[in-house]
Amino acid sequence: MAQTFSTLRWEARSLVLLDQTQLPEKEVYLVCKDYRAVADAIRRLAVRGAPAIGVAGAFGVVLGAYELLRQEKDFFAGLEAVFAELAGTRPTAVNLFWALGRMEQVVTVHRQDSPAVVAAALEAEALRLYQEDIETNRRLGAHGAALLTDGMTVLTICNAGALATVAHGTALAVIRAAVDEGKYLKVVACETRPLLQGARLTTWELMKDGIPVTLITDNMAGYLMQQGKVQAVLTGADRIAANGDVANKIGTYTLAVLAQAHGIPFYVAAPMSTFDFSLPDGKQIPIEERAAEEVTRLRGQQIAPEGVTVYNPAFDVTPARFVRAWITEKGVFRSQGGKIKLEDTD
Amino acid sequence: MAQTFSTLRWEARSLVLLDQTQLPEKEVYLVCKDYRAVADAIRRLAVRGAPAIGVAGAFGVVLGAYELLRQEKDFFAGLEAVFAELAGTRPTAVNLFWALGRMEQVVTVHRQDSPAVVAAALEAEALRLYQEDIETNRRLGAHGAALLTDGMTVLTICNAGALATVAHGTALAVIRAAVDEGKYLKVVACETRPLLQGARLTTWELMKDGIPVTLITDNMAGYLMQQGKVQAVLTGADRIAANGDVANKIGTYTLAVLAQAHGIPFYVAAPMSTFDFSLPDGKQIPIEERAAEEVTRLRGQQIAPEGVTVYNPAFDVTPARFVRAWITEKGVFRSQGGKIKLEDTD
Repeated sequence: MAQTFSTLRWEARSLVLLDQTQLPEKEVYLVCKDYRAVADAIRRLAVRGAPAIGVAGAFGVVLGAYELLRQEKDFFAGLEAVFAELAGTRPTAVNLFWALGRMEQVVTVHRQDSPAVVAAALEAEALRLYQEDIETNRRLGAHGAALLTDGMTVLTICNAGALATVAHGTALAVIRAAVDEGKYLKVVACETRPLLQGARLTTWELMKDGIPVTLITDNMAGYLMQQGKVQAVLTGADRIAANGDVANKIGTYTLAVLAQAHGIPFYVAAPMSTFDFSLPDGKQIPIEERAAEEVTRLRGQQIAPEGVTVYNPAFDVTPARFVRAWITEKGVFRSQGGKIKLEDTD
Repeated sequence: MAQTFSTLRWEARSLVLLDQTQLPEKEVYLVCKDYRAVADAIRRLAVRGAPAIGVAGAFGVVLGAYELLRQEKDFFAGLEAVFAELAGTRPTAVNLFWALGRMEQVVTVHRQDSPAVVAAALEAEALRLYQEDIETNRRLGAHGAALLTDGMTVLTICNAGALATVAHGTALAVIRAAVDEGKYLKVVACETRPLLQGARLTTWELMKDGIPVTLITDNMAGYLMQQGKVQAVLTGADRIAANGDVANKIGTYTLAVLAQAHGIPFYVAAPMSTFDFSLPDGKQIPIEERAAEEVTRLRGQQIAPEGVTVYNPAFDVTPARFVRAWITEKGVFRSQGGKIKLEDTD
């Protein structure tokens, strides 16, 4: 399917981002001309979604490198500060650290070269990450499509769509691939409080594609499953531990428990860059807590008493035992004897 | 605890309602001088909560009776239309039909009397329902308090508080009674989309009482339970079938499944008038579906694409097997061999 918007693109040495805080009302593009603007866009979720954050962070490094070139400061020391600023924006999604790691390797390789050469090499690497993301998502979509059958209703949370990646999406790439194969699918989008990525973004991009989508509030998911109205749950991921535990948008764990209680398969779709093999399980994944105002205010409107105590974790961790399969660009992983292994695809 | 607001009161032959659509920003009282105003207030949730709707409906009948007296129309035929209008406001909570049934009995008993006598008898009955609700909730609170122990964190949904009743509340009456006994309790309030009764009402009335309350979005409940941060779930009910199946605010079933998966007791607090013994189980309970705009608009702001398909059931049904105990003014019911029975309280 042709995409009518771009989540992020590199244009005239600027990173152009579709400002997701303004969707669905306005399709506004932010032009980031320096790395601070990129860091700010990541922090306030103008760009969000683990793979998109990774690629945006990489271009942030490129912008930082070109800025240092112009300033004639200590290039390599300055670059370290750029990396630190970008790495400090959001703690949970690992793709950001993975992409920054790829960029750091470029710096290491070119340590003896001139700053101009390093900057050009960084730009080339960011563009590679950009292209790889498109191809990765296309592949994981194709692998996952086999798990979805004609007539299914698939429930999803947050936005694991084209808006969360350079293109195609992760969970939604699977749905798009299945639809492209001729399967008729319906999607149920959980609105995903507090920031309503499901209501604002997933509905928006599926409606653009003409894929049937029904919006529900998060607390309706159990009732739909009880009524037999959901045949699969499919989400993205922000970080996956070596044992398959999945950190993803808050509410994902609740959906996994509900899916298991109703015998509904729960699938996770994510690029291999989402795996953090340094963590044996999900307990060590840092969970970002965000401002109370995200819960108590909605688009400037107060919706709870002033001064109320709020708990606002942005993610939760779903233990591997709840996951039927992990869909990646390499293929579909399944759990076998406490380890996750690539399925035979012969 | 002394209550600093009144959910509803009968004053100078008017029903004065605290307009709950305007909380927490404004404490505005609506003065209903005729039954249409009461029916409208029920439909648009200015007054809500199963017990409060029942009492409000009864006073609606009184207002209808006095209006018919003034108009010198056919009193008894006119009264039937009043009953029909009020009964047609909301389908799920049975307390409304129970209270209207009590009022109809008064009409039956006084069928041979003058309209003035009938109207006076109806007013007396509505005032009895009002007083009974206060006493019922005080009693159910005292019975339920024994189930809560010092230091517990209790999770609740929607508002089963003083705002849902004439006074004390149902679920919150239990918490208030336990606190009055000297137990230290913390409450987690699920915000309860789409209409945010938890965020707007439960937090508001608990903050007035000085009971510690933390607000979360609905999709955080599972994560809190996984972390061991919740020791009991306690909700109200809109209708309970003979076998103990519970219709309550959408999201209740999800909490019940989560509680069971985490070994956390799930309690329901409701007056006996919430039981509908005409229904063997919950399958026959009608579930109200409300307008899509409740989900797609928030206080006038559009939060989803125009024209998106929405599913908006206002309630769900939790099978009896998920309920550890039903707390009523008669005592605590438990499930025994597929039937619910009053606990020995000797």
